[in-house]
Amino acid sequence: MTEATVETRVRFAETDGMGVTYHGNYLPWFEMARVALLDGMGIPYRDLEREGFLLPVLETGLTYHQPSRFDDRLRITVRLVEKPKARLRLAYRVERDGELLVEGFTVHAFVNRDFKAVRPPDRVEEAMRRAFGSHSA
Amino acid sequence: MTEATVETRVRFAETDGMGVTYHGNYLPWFEMARVALLDGMGIPYRDLEREGFLLPVLETGLTYHQPSRFDDRLRITVRLVEKPKARLRLAYRVERDGELLVEGFTVHAFVNRDFKAVRPPDRVEEAMRRAFGSHSA
Amino acid sequence: MTEATVETRVRFAETDGMGVTYHGNYLPWFEMARVALLDGMGIPYRDLEREGFLLPVLETGLTYHQPSRFDDRLRITVRLVEKPKARLRLAYRVERDGELLVEGFTVHAFVNRDFKAVRPPDRVEEAMRRAFGSHSA
Amino acid sequence: MTEATVETRVRFAETDGMGVTYHGNYLPWFEMARVALLDGMGIPYRDLEREGFLLPVLETGLTYHQPSRFDDRLRITVRLVEKPKARLRLAYRVERDGELLVEGFTVHAFVNRDFKAVRPPDRVEEAMRRAFGSHSA
Repeated sequence: MTEATVETRVRFAETDGMGVTYHGNYLPWFEMARVALLDGMGIPYRDLEREGFLLPVLETGLTYHQPSRFDDRLRITVRLVEKPKARLRLAYRVERDGELLVEGFTVHAFVNRDFKAVRPPDRVEEAMRRAFGSHSA
Repeated sequence: MTEATVETRVRFAETDGMGVTYHGNYLPWFEMARVALLDGMGIPYRDLEREGFLLPVLETGLTYHQPSRFDDRLRITVRLVEKPKARLRLAYRVERDGELLVEGFTVHAFVNRDFKAVRPPDRVEEAMRRAFGSHSA
Repeated sequence: MTEATVETRVRFAETDGMGVTYHGNYLPWFEMARVALLDGMGIPYRDLEREGFLLPVLETGLTYHQPSRFDDRLRITVRLVEKPKARLRLAYRVERDGELLVEGFTVHAFVNRDFKAVRPPDRVEEAMRRAFGSHSA
Repeated sequence: MTEATVETRVRFAETDGMGVTYHGNYLPWFEMARVALLDGMGIPYRDLEREGFLLPVLETGLTYHQPSRFDDRLRITVRLVEKPKARLRLAYRVERDGELLVEGFTVHAFVNRDFKAVRPPDRVEEAMRRAFGSHSA
């Protein structure tokens, strides 16, 4: 379990005057996939946040191959690309009917509410090890 | 001082596939004007928030007379419409070159971080009385 | 068929510094429900838009009873409140586990790409009559 | 003239449940700076768009060094990093009181309304040559 997929339908609110999805609006979709990935790993982000562990984005990059449009039904897939150490690196693909529209990545680190780097709770480290174990198995 | 005006320039991100500003994006502009009004009254929202006083929107309404478009330069004016009691009622106008595009209102109440209704700090009540005094003078 | 319900999960992007959904972000959720309603009536908004018929929001109002928070699963229900004439009036309810959080309405009119009021295509008027007929039956 | 700077004040709408600016909301700020750069070069984006020339983002990347918060006053600087050829590459810096918070870049190409790559109008190519000439002088 180092991968998750979510589906979304492009909202009119997410389009811009070019008639396509505004480029910044892919980041909340990446977030949806990331939230589903953490759910699948048994460490829902909602719980982490309540315990005071935040996982902000430190770096991101996106490549736009094709635009998406209002009402398009999209699949967003996220993948943990390497065994997480101090940082977590995730890769994303946005597809419509099997066609790749956008690729991207995010890099994260655990911080506390004052944005100081912290070690995540043990169960998070364990969940990540487990995820990678099952992946390589 | 029961009124404030701010200016903004429509961002491409704020437009939608109709080529006009998405109707929901007027609310952050109302917020900009409201923040400026509180500044002018000597009770910056930033300070209130730090002290644990939040001022959420309980009700809002907007009437759209004319669309605005990318790069339009708009003036947003906010006005305290009555002496605040438990609730604060504000009225807004969005104009372009003197033409009224959108009208609206918001209703607020002070709450604490748990969203329980609270009396605002004394200096807030005083600032509001002062604002209304100077207005009726 | 004068009603539709959609579900959504609150995105982190939709929350604000108060830790709750930003009040303006309910409007895209209303839009999701409205799009589903038009789908159910056999007149997808995507098709209308391609034919040059736009259905902008002329008026809206929202009352916030309770905040929603990150990761909440919400149901948004929209209802055509009266037989549409020149204007279309829709009412919305946002609920979490059966609890009403937010109520609202939108008023729309058909316009062309230059934002001039136009009569909708015949099939739209028919779909609306049909929807109301089945409702009152 | 290969650089432009704009100022913005963080809106509450732009913050998220972590109490900081949502990472995706830097992209509309990059856009504000880019629009100002094109203005300064004598080729306002608004005019290009009206003539049917769009300049979508093909690629972007952001590195977040420090969070920004509600009401922070930020400076966003954009710079044309090389003489534009088929693609336009821009670099951005977001600063608060001289402290670098976020860096990023965007890559663009001119397309027509059907998103087919096109040569920009002659006056655009000329404006870009002129901008670079004055820069190297």
